[in-house]
Amino acid sequence: MPELSHVDSQGKAKMVDVSSKNDTLRHAKAQGYVFLNETAFNAVRDNKIKKGDVLSVAKIAGIQAAKKTNELIPLCHNIFISHIDLSFELIENENAIVINSEVSSEAKTGVEMEAMTAVAVASLTVYDMCKALDRSIKISDIVLTYKTGGKSGTYVRK
Amino acid sequence: MPELSHVDSQGKAKMVDVSSKNDTLRHAKAQGYVFLNETAFNAVRDNKIKKGDVLSVAKIAGIQAAKKTNELIPLCHNIFISHIDLSFELIENENAIVINSEVSSEAKTGVEMEAMTAVAVASLTVYDMCKALDRSIKISDIVLTYKTGGKSGTYVRK
Amino acid sequence: MPELSHVDSQGKAKMVDVSSKNDTLRHAKAQGYVFLNETAFNAVRDNKIKKGDVLSVAKIAGIQAAKKTNELIPLCHNIFISHIDLSFELIENENAIVINSEVSSEAKTGVEMEAMTAVAVASLTVYDMCKALDRSIKISDIVLTYKTGGKSGTYVRK
Amino acid sequence: MPELSHVDSQGKAKMVDVSSKNDTLRHAKAQGYVFLNETAFNAVRDNKIKKGDVLSVAKIAGIQAAKKTNELIPLCHNIFISHIDLSFELIENENAIVINSEVSSEAKTGVEMEAMTAVAVASLTVYDMCKALDRSIKISDIVLTYKTGGKSGTYVRK
Amino acid sequence: MPELSHVDSQGKAKMVDVSSKNDTLRHAKAQGYVFLNETAFNAVRDNKIKKGDVLSVAKIAGIQAAKKTNELIPLCHNIFISHIDLSFELIENENAIVINSEVSSEAKTGVEMEAMTAVAVASLTVYDMCKALDRSIKISDIVLTYKTGGKSGTYVRK
Amino acid sequence: MPELSHVDSQGKAKMVDVSSKNDTLRHAKAQGYVFLNETAFNAVRDNKIKKGDVLSVAKIAGIQAAKKTNELIPLCHNIFISHIDLSFELIENENAIVINSEVSSEAKTGVEMEAMTAVAVASLTVYDMCKALDRSIKISDIVLTYKTGGKSGTYVRK
Repeated sequence: MPELSHVDSQGKAKMVDVSSKNDTLRHAKAQGYVFLNETAFNAVRDNKIKKGDVLSVAKIAGIQAAKKTNELIPLCHNIFISHIDLSFELIENENAIVINSEVSSEAKTGVEMEAMTAVAVASLTVYDMCKALDRSIKISDIVLTYKTGGKSGTYVRK
Repeated sequence: MPELSHVDSQGKAKMVDVSSKNDTLRHAKAQGYVFLNETAFNAVRDNKIKKGDVLSVAKIAGIQAAKKTNELIPLCHNIFISHIDLSFELIENENAIVINSEVSSEAKTGVEMEAMTAVAVASLTVYDMCKALDRSIKISDIVLTYKTGGKSGTYVRK
Repeated sequence: MPELSHVDSQGKAKMVDVSSKNDTLRHAKAQGYVFLNETAFNAVRDNKIKKGDVLSVAKIAGIQAAKKTNELIPLCHNIFISHIDLSFELIENENAIVINSEVSSEAKTGVEMEAMTAVAVASLTVYDMCKALDRSIKISDIVLTYKTGGKSGTYVRK
Repeated sequence: MPELSHVDSQGKAKMVDVSSKNDTLRHAKAQGYVFLNETAFNAVRDNKIKKGDVLSVAKIAGIQAAKKTNELIPLCHNIFISHIDLSFELIENENAIVINSEVSSEAKTGVEMEAMTAVAVASLTVYDMCKALDRSIKISDIVLTYKTGGKSGTYVRK
Repeated sequence: MPELSHVDSQGKAKMVDVSSKNDTLRHAKAQGYVFLNETAFNAVRDNKIKKGDVLSVAKIAGIQAAKKTNELIPLCHNIFISHIDLSFELIENENAIVINSEVSSEAKTGVEMEAMTAVAVASLTVYDMCKALDRSIKISDIVLTYKTGGKSGTYVRK
Repeated sequence: MPELSHVDSQGKAKMVDVSSKNDTLRHAKAQGYVFLNETAFNAVRDNKIKKGDVLSVAKIAGIQAAKKTNELIPLCHNIFISHIDLSFELIENENAIVINSEVSSEAKTGVEMEAMTAVAVASLTVYDMCKALDRSIKISDIVLTYKTGGKSGTYVRK
């Protein structure tokens, strides 16, 4: 029967022991959407055309959050991260922003949570900077799109 | 023409100056969904029936993240938070977990971001603890459902 | 029947809601002991006589830890702290160091945990700096000795 | 004459230079006691029988604190930690909780402080959640019980 | 004879007790210079003309550092900050960047350290982003230019 | 044409990808000055002769800040640091304190920022502890004096 990796035989939370694992190169990619109303979307788009500051701040927030993943997610390991990147795409006809992240590390454990956390916190930052124009902004569809390295191998989201 | 509150007249990021605002009582509520496959959903449900640890850990993570909001979201103010609560509901026929948060403060600025951050990080924690069973978990529909207090008054999501 | 304040009616952890409390002046004092072997005790004593650095570092660590209490203790509130002090006394015939802390705040909730955390982390810092001389150091008898302010009034340890 | 490893020849604090050390596998175990009055002890025990939340929260707090050790203890190195575990045992006739921690790492320096810090912060968390029932709770006998790895070899507390 | 406010009568560090002070409105301004070689200065200037990212990132870093001041400076109090702003000016004929900060709070203690820390960390961020072009960058003349509020009144740097 | 390493082809901030770099031994040294008025300088000097606490606290603050560099500087990598040291020299005829730092690591990226951050935060700490005696204190000439290791080799400031 399938079991939760972070829960012991008595149902209590536990950290996974990675002591006997080797350092291998790991990559992970995640994606998420921020849906805005037209006013807020246009404000982000026009700001981007000029100086790009909403998305610049969101990018910095995502990078810094990825480095803090092990502080935020209780059972995550602290690891050295060799690269974090985020990119943003505006989808005009949906008033949406697509956020993609990519994280790399040479470590005993993967960087899926770092990639997911980067997208989530970048999304929250967009929300924060636009909330005066639209309190109904929706953060959606945060998923892992790819990961490689480690015992469980490569995963590609269909 | 509507403008971003966190961007100055030259398009650059700025923090909102709340120096002249009064401390008033503020509440905010947020909500989000975590969609799992059947195996992972059943594991969370069965663990909940026994000891509830996945959701206990997610709750603690959400509370702690709410207290860290100003560290995560660059232009957020650091404020005293008088209450943070999270609750979880399992939706059997959708293999989904609904996460609701509620945050209170007596402050010069609102607690919307704290409520949103609590939901986002609780969701990420569920992902982390279940990812070995299901890498395709989706975090979705994170929205503000309610806020009151401050100059902009009460907001209720339709 | 007496109940845990940080656990709800279903046995789950919760933060205490202090929204309706008033800001009042609060003080708390805590105490703890570090027992060393003679070699380590003498090294601390002689270092103190010269420059006092082991205890200086422990004092700084205790002050900084008190400010981090809400990050360390999951259900603690973040509060403004108006004063933190630690003092150290050497007890020659027991090879022991007594650590006393005192914390003040004008807040909706007390500073007991801040005082206790200051003593605990100062003790750990002494351990760290002396462990090469004595791995058997014991940290003991960390207690709250006094607190005042708030609805529960004054407490003095007998 | 024996000397403090974290103090230089002039009596000033210093960080130990581990640049020339090799990464080796390291383990450390620590232990501590929390003594409660009967009311508080019974509340923890009954909560444990139901859902275990006091000890669940204390466990999470201990794990997270171990990851923050280098932030709390000024002269500690920041290291990658491959495993952190805490367990709790209730001693009925003493109204006591025994907390045991175990930490592993492959690093240039040991994990004694991480193990000690995990026990101390888990103890403080128990105190926090029970203090409304008993302000006289005592945290005692925090000691290193075992460590292995590194130049100084294995230590087992008698 | 003049005495250090953060040192007690025995020469040991201490935190200033602000328990009996009132919350008053406080402002502080600080300033600093970053001197670059021509290549690095031109790269910042041209980047600024296009998108402004070096200075955008430095601004965000300065704002976030101001919020962390009490974590960085051991004897600083943690306070609520109502506003933080940084501005940057390029001085062509000196290949220099002038960084100005401004911080406000309604608190029992001033925000001088927050303003100084914002400038220092923004300067370090410029260094970081330009160091591949010029390792000889100099950060200089970080001073408090203005402060008001509190018992010591207004200070204006001559 | 020379380009900023932390800015992509569109002028946006980016983290440098160090995934393909090897761990090599790295050292960096930085230096800075704090200029005080005579009253404040004498207070530091006399405190140093007695117990040295101002400079002790500044040293601890510098060590802890170096460990936090990746939190403060947005595009810095988090790395294991094997050694951090700071030293202080008083220059009587200039009422100045010279602060020197030295940082070592075996990592994929250098420790220049850690050395610079240590000096900057130690300087701010001196400012904090002396500001009641002299609000005109100036922090100046923070520079990298030396670095070795990594692809760009050794740098020695002239």
